[in-house]
Amino acid sequence: MSLTKADFSRLRSLQEKKHRESLGLFVVEGEKVIAELLSAQFSFTAIYATKDWTGAARPPQSSGKKTPPLLLPIEITPAEMARISHYPTPSTVLAVGQITRPLLSSDTLNHGLTLALDGLQDPGNVGTLLRIADWFAFDRVLLSPDCADLFSQKVINASMGSFARVKTFTTSLADALATATVPILGCDLHGANIHTLTPLRDAVVVLGSEGRGLSPAVQSLVTQRVTIPKFGAAESLNVAIAAAIVCDNLRRTSASL
Amino acid sequence: MSLTKADFSRLRSLQEKKHRESLGLFVVEGEKVIAELLSAQFSFTAIYATKDWTGAARPPQSSGKKTPPLLLPIEITPAEMARISHYPTPSTVLAVGQITRPLLSSDTLNHGLTLALDGLQDPGNVGTLLRIADWFAFDRVLLSPDCADLFSQKVINASMGSFARVKTFTTSLADALATATVPILGCDLHGANIHTLTPLRDAVVVLGSEGRGLSPAVQSLVTQRVTIPKFGAAESLNVAIAAAIVCDNLRRTSASL
Repeated sequence: MSLTKADFSRLRSLQEKKHRESLGLFVVEGEKVIAELLSAQFSFTAIYATKDWTGAARPPQSSGKKTPPLLLPIEITPAEMARISHYPTPSTVLAVGQITRPLLSSDTLNHGLTLALDGLQDPGNVGTLLRIADWFAFDRVLLSPDCADLFSQKVINASMGSFARVKTFTTSLADALATATVPILGCDLHGANIHTLTPLRDAVVVLGSEGRGLSPAVQSLVTQRVTIPKFGAAESLNVAIAAAIVCDNLRRTSASL
Repeated sequence: MSLTKADFSRLRSLQEKKHRESLGLFVVEGEKVIAELLSAQFSFTAIYATKDWTGAARPPQSSGKKTPPLLLPIEITPAEMARISHYPTPSTVLAVGQITRPLLSSDTLNHGLTLALDGLQDPGNVGTLLRIADWFAFDRVLLSPDCADLFSQKVINASMGSFARVKTFTTSLADALATATVPILGCDLHGANIHTLTPLRDAVVVLGSEGRGLSPAVQSLVTQRVTIPKFGAAESLNVAIAAAIVCDNLRRTSASL
């Protein structure tokens, strides 16, 4: 099958956020990231591959779980791939997925563990934080609308497949957190030692950008300020590093619950 | 003062590692990173700045501490800066420093805390690990010779000034660790729970690359395998994230020593 001129232009346009939003679609390229997403049972709407693609489009079957139906890749030529690719050096595979943005129902935040990202604009950090939320089995990640675009290739790459496993909600944090009755933990330099955190089954951990910290509206909703003890001279830790340390301590102190 | 043709070519050549090594010099550019290094009392050999540079070349005076002598910036024109800069958009300041590689004396590793990086090729990770070592006041960082170049701008930028504060040694890890009598901790998926680590005053924490893990020679010298408990489905954590969690647990469990 060969691609039409309209296909080329539509697929190429998805590198820009505004076109992703208007079409409700996003695109990822590369054998590694697509293998990760398929193995996390992500349902693409289309997979374009050259005959050199070695990946299987069928996600691994896990007994008892509903698996998405087999998606046959559309075979295209390397020349066609070069025309739809967003990269100077195209890969053997490019996949298209649907942008979904579930609504956060009230009371959701009061159950389980939530990571809330306030204005984190670095896509590498956002992707790494999805991976951390996945490792520590957080129930969901909230992103304020000014975070890096969840459906950009950089965020998805950095998440190492966790993009497909972690439940995400893009929402005004101030509005969402205002309805929560569980503890809302925020990191700063003058909070309680994170090593002596009280056990928590349900909580929200909010993280601000390294440059600007938490927005004032979110800051005012924090109910527990926590601090990672510092021993040396570095002024701060990277936001994903700080989040991982908080998550590890939260899981450690709450292991007995 | 204006720069000679030889100056231009020498300064521009420093973007390549082989020229840095043959001249024994490295270069950093940018107001933020140079301010960080100056505030960490790093002694540059030269600072080139346009008249728009707002930074002071004199490091903050801390009473009782030996401070490096005042280094006057060499004022150059924006056109000259554009010729020596390694970037398409030059900054207002570029500084040159000397590459120093102190030798690791025997027995050094037996005192205090050491972070040892085995073949970490991503400069962002290496810089972030320097920042973590600095935060947790590790006494030194060892780098195997195949790590990302410590004197590259990417490593120095990612370290957020910690480059100037942390003692670093580039050395064969297998040789260095063979002489150590303190516990050598390595992270893998089947070690002891890091939450129940025994207190340690002196230790080495070794970290391998995410792709390849520890080299066999280093792996065989690990005396304590530790694991960060995983609750969800992510396959692994980024190496800097894992290191930070290990360091935090090490400092927490050893706080009473």
